[in-house]
Amino acid sequence: MNEFSLIENFFADCTQKREDVALAVGDDCALMTVPPGCELAVSIDTLVAGVHFTAEVDSAALGHKALTVGLSDLAAMGAEPAWATLALTLPELDRAWLAGFTQGLSKLARSYGVQLVGGDTTRGPLAVTMQLHGFVPRGKALRRDGARPGDGIYVTGTLGDSGLALQARLEGLQLSQEALCYVEHRLDWPQPRVHEALALRPLAHAAIDISDGLAADLGHILKGSGVGAAVEVEALPLSDSFRASLELEQAWALALTAGDDYELCVTAPAEYHDRIQAVLSDRGCPCTLIGTIEEEPGFRCRRRNGASFIPQQQGYRHF
Amino acid sequence: MNEFSLIENFFADCTQKREDVALAVGDDCALMTVPPGCELAVSIDTLVAGVHFTAEVDSAALGHKALTVGLSDLAAMGAEPAWATLALTLPELDRAWLAGFTQGLSKLARSYGVQLVGGDTTRGPLAVTMQLHGFVPRGKALRRDGARPGDGIYVTGTLGDSGLALQARLEGLQLSQEALCYVEHRLDWPQPRVHEALALRPLAHAAIDISDGLAADLGHILKGSGVGAAVEVEALPLSDSFRASLELEQAWALALTAGDDYELCVTAPAEYHDRIQAVLSDRGCPCTLIGTIEEEPGFRCRRRNGASFIPQQQGYRHF
Repeated sequence: MNEFSLIENFFADCTQKREDVALAVGDDCALMTVPPGCELAVSIDTLVAGVHFTAEVDSAALGHKALTVGLSDLAAMGAEPAWATLALTLPELDRAWLAGFTQGLSKLARSYGVQLVGGDTTRGPLAVTMQLHGFVPRGKALRRDGARPGDGIYVTGTLGDSGLALQARLEGLQLSQEALCYVEHRLDWPQPRVHEALALRPLAHAAIDISDGLAADLGHILKGSGVGAAVEVEALPLSDSFRASLELEQAWALALTAGDDYELCVTAPAEYHDRIQAVLSDRGCPCTLIGTIEEEPGFRCRRRNGASFIPQQQGYRHF
Repeated sequence: MNEFSLIENFFADCTQKREDVALAVGDDCALMTVPPGCELAVSIDTLVAGVHFTAEVDSAALGHKALTVGLSDLAAMGAEPAWATLALTLPELDRAWLAGFTQGLSKLARSYGVQLVGGDTTRGPLAVTMQLHGFVPRGKALRRDGARPGDGIYVTGTLGDSGLALQARLEGLQLSQEALCYVEHRLDWPQPRVHEALALRPLAHAAIDISDGLAADLGHILKGSGVGAAVEVEALPLSDSFRASLELEQAWALALTAGDDYELCVTAPAEYHDRIQAVLSDRGCPCTLIGTIEEEPGFRCRRRNGASFIPQQQGYRHF
């Protein structure tokens, strides 16, 4: 079997057909149409074996996660997902592995109406690159440079669960069976906040997804917007499993710095607080006010009593 | 230095700014606008060290080639290039290597008006994934399924030079210094046939770029279009260096099967022969009639005297 039939067999029909795709897998390029009045939003990300995941990871989970990473970037811009392309590098042709990968990818793709329109399959060290493509009405994207002093800082879901799972998996941290089961599911099967982002788009000033840790990612908003932030650590949303597994100060530090959460961090005017709670509680998604954008540059973490809190870890850096 | 500043330092300003790019490197997604009436054409390709190139290759040549691969796919659809995204996996942070890579990429990007709009930089085994994005007026793309019996089969430039360079580099085939110099330049610094493709678009029925060898790539047109082809081996366009380095039958076999040419293969109605020659000779690009599309399926190579010619090699297969 050669690379062409590999692509055709496993990927050509794994996702739904969209009407805006004139030509998908099987020619030199895919051909698609962007709706009038919309900008095209694109994001490309690579997951490398041994760096972003261990080679033993379930291939369905990897297919799911590779798509989540890109969908989460689209969510962070308030963009509606449309198409994906996949560049897959494999050390060998393992049909069972590929079938699992395709299943994990296609199930999530179908649930967000995403069509896989093109790809490239090569031999080499295991790595997955996906590019996601979405639409956003012209000028309406949520950017990193829109935060303003006085904005509330919100995060969806809970923070740190994936980081805790990584500590258990890579560093041997002991967790209860229940907690381990919960946080491993959060690590391996993260859910992108696509619908939540679309609901927040008319209300928010700025947004980012939390892939490198809240402190690092909120830091990008602060730098992009030329502002600072005060965050109250007692307000950080933590899952029961997470809370039960760590001392409180450890928990705050990990929630501030652990990557792979794929939750959203948004800033929005204080007067939208009730509307934000309303649109997200409709979707069953917690959305927690954790702090305030301030004029003075810098990222300030505080206890409720006003004392500074300085986390020890930093977001993951490749170099 | 972390991955963020890596992207910002080396790539953010390496290409020209386009007016249709609202937001480039530095947010969760890039935001762009496709012109009204146009389809978006996209192609993603990965080059892996040890598979597609040797680790010693000049990094400027690698940056050039990674972009050429995608530009050549756009050319094969008759699409006008616009934007690129880059997912770069590096074993270590080598500033001199990166500076060379960026220079090779950016010089070619500027010459085709391509802006690098986004990327991801990760640590891992050396690999380069690029996605190219271009525009084509709705319904006007050159596809693989448009060839019709009676069409002439044309190829741009010359065939097999890169394959000959690979034989010299990997298998120790001895070439004259002049021939080696010529074919290595063709292998390492291929030129995508973008302008030629745009000139051919109104005239051609089908097109593909020759990246896996003429026989394999023309085979995709034949399969996609449900037709066959007769090709006359004496008509295959060969460079002087190539011709001087091989016995005639070896030369034909390599010209039919060697990859990495990045020339175009197009089919077009016989009555457009003179117009095809005219539009390409204006650009100084040879365009050679090598055969005819026939109703009977299959790929038939013939000598001028009518005898069959069966090449021994096949296009490169990863698996």
